[in-house]
Amino acid sequence: MRGAVLYGPGDVRFEDRQEPTIVEPTDAIISLPVTCICGSDLWPYRGIQATPEPVAMGHEYCGFVEEVGRGVTSLRRGQFVIGSFFASDNTCPHCRVGYHTSCAHKALVGGAQAPRLRVPLADGTLVATKDVPDTDQIPSMLALSDVMGTGWFAADAANVKPGATVVVVGDGAVGLLGVLSAKQMGAERIIAMSRHESRQKLAREFGATDIVTERGDEGVERIKQLTDGVGADSVLECVGTHESMMQAIKSTRPGGSVGYVGVPHGVSLGGQQLFFSHVHLHGGPAPVRRYLPQLIDLAFAGKINPGKVFDLVLPLDQVDEGYRSMDERRAIKTLLRP
Amino acid sequence: MRGAVLYGPGDVRFEDRQEPTIVEPTDAIISLPVTCICGSDLWPYRGIQATPEPVAMGHEYCGFVEEVGRGVTSLRRGQFVIGSFFASDNTCPHCRVGYHTSCAHKALVGGAQAPRLRVPLADGTLVATKDVPDTDQIPSMLALSDVMGTGWFAADAANVKPGATVVVVGDGAVGLLGVLSAKQMGAERIIAMSRHESRQKLAREFGATDIVTERGDEGVERIKQLTDGVGADSVLECVGTHESMMQAIKSTRPGGSVGYVGVPHGVSLGGQQLFFSHVHLHGGPAPVRRYLPQLIDLAFAGKINPGKVFDLVLPLDQVDEGYRSMDERRAIKTLLRP
Repeated sequence: MRGAVLYGPGDVRFEDRQEPTIVEPTDAIISLPVTCICGSDLWPYRGIQATPEPVAMGHEYCGFVEEVGRGVTSLRRGQFVIGSFFASDNTCPHCRVGYHTSCAHKALVGGAQAPRLRVPLADGTLVATKDVPDTDQIPSMLALSDVMGTGWFAADAANVKPGATVVVVGDGAVGLLGVLSAKQMGAERIIAMSRHESRQKLAREFGATDIVTERGDEGVERIKQLTDGVGADSVLECVGTHESMMQAIKSTRPGGSVGYVGVPHGVSLGGQQLFFSHVHLHGGPAPVRRYLPQLIDLAFAGKINPGKVFDLVLPLDQVDEGYRSMDERRAIKTLLRP
Repeated sequence: MRGAVLYGPGDVRFEDRQEPTIVEPTDAIISLPVTCICGSDLWPYRGIQATPEPVAMGHEYCGFVEEVGRGVTSLRRGQFVIGSFFASDNTCPHCRVGYHTSCAHKALVGGAQAPRLRVPLADGTLVATKDVPDTDQIPSMLALSDVMGTGWFAADAANVKPGATVVVVGDGAVGLLGVLSAKQMGAERIIAMSRHESRQKLAREFGATDIVTERGDEGVERIKQLTDGVGADSVLECVGTHESMMQAIKSTRPGGSVGYVGVPHGVSLGGQQLFFSHVHLHGGPAPVRRYLPQLIDLAFAGKINPGKVFDLVLPLDQVDEGYRSMDERRAIKTLLRP
């Protein structure tokens, strides 16, 4: 089969890769009707994260079970399944309290920008849908695999409650779906921080009530103005830079909460500043597996439509253009058809 | 009157100070049957925090209302009252959600190592007890003013729940009262980290089930051994150094919580380490005022006896020996009688 391989900064190739096979008895092989590119794929694509050797890209996936190892008990050929970027056993002490991305046996899933994928710990990792989704629902199912689950975790980690005032820092797919999540959780006011017209538009569609274009301390000042000097109840940090993290912390009211899901690059928090900010801080790699059953129900019922973040659709063999479009911020998120 | 004044490292003097008077109409003057020295007073006493000019010491207090300004409506002469180290109006948006130490009008209370004290924003700051406590209850009332309220906030910020496994980092008065708080909140297992025999003894009396004497990464390793490799549900950080903060974070299970109340000195948190730790982090200057009504009831009912942390009693004129004893860790906490 052919799939995407990153060789170094800006160098992603569509090339022959080995067909995935059952390696461990707990594996499953799934076929992927669609696949996509993640904002976090841009870290190595931009060279901010090193690529010491060529790496098969892609960690967001949904599709049809083709084959299962002899140790897999809960899945059968033909089922439609969704999983997360970390495989997890769903039985260890960390999984049992909902932190599947800290699973004692976690394993990164990679190589999903391809027609087929091997998923380890299939029983624990994959959630089967009751019915096979319609073709037009499949992009939303794919979004659940990472960006929707991550936006949801950001809102959950930020303790979004009904009636709350929420700020979302970051207007990538995760930030936009953080807006959608906050709306679902009953937030009354949702302030999206964005300078891009198409993203502002989608943010409003997902439930944003206000848009703030200022950044850094000016952005914080604007949030304070909009909240009578108090700050927001909940702030979702969906970028991962030091500036965005400080912007999130300073925009939060004392006693409020920051949920952070942007993979930190160069973030360093001074103890005293954090201490006197009085914020709650929680985040990390989103335990998407915890939320999948609930999010699948919401997406099937049409209550959420996270697939709207895909504003560019390309055949998989144009994966390089998919990366370029996202890198240059011409696209929010690229859907690829194998 | 005579009271304690710090001139510089190791130089605390008992000397003439101006009698406190009503300055603002919202002030109250209270007389102090007892006073005490705080662990945080040791930061400037040790020179870790600068003392650019002589400063009247003491911020923990309870006592009898002697005089109130004309703007004070809820207090009258003769009442027994307790307040916190930050005066607060109890009406601003931050106070209304229980974050009195971030009050929009907060003011530090200082100079309580003396027979009398001026308390700003008296209506918001002071909580009157229903009855005048017995003499032997007064040390516990004094402890509520800071160390007990701070230990309670540490446990609350660390989300201590019934049945939880809790670790307490720090065996000063706040850490020991963090043990007591965790016990009150229903923790099943409470692991106190301490190397001092008398403090270990008091920790056990307050509810500690295990004592760990190792520190740093060895301490973390020991906690992991005691929790089947999982880590603790809740960790109370009651020191404020970088090492103690890292020890707290690393001892916490993914999804668990760190409540930190040690004023940070030299603490810097790397974003990636925090991200992958998956912990909840909350802390800051304890909003003691929020907890005072509840803690006063518990202390009056004899359900908590936080005054046990006072293991040295001196007349106020020996305040210098009080500081020395705590600095050299001969005493946990010094009670002073004016």
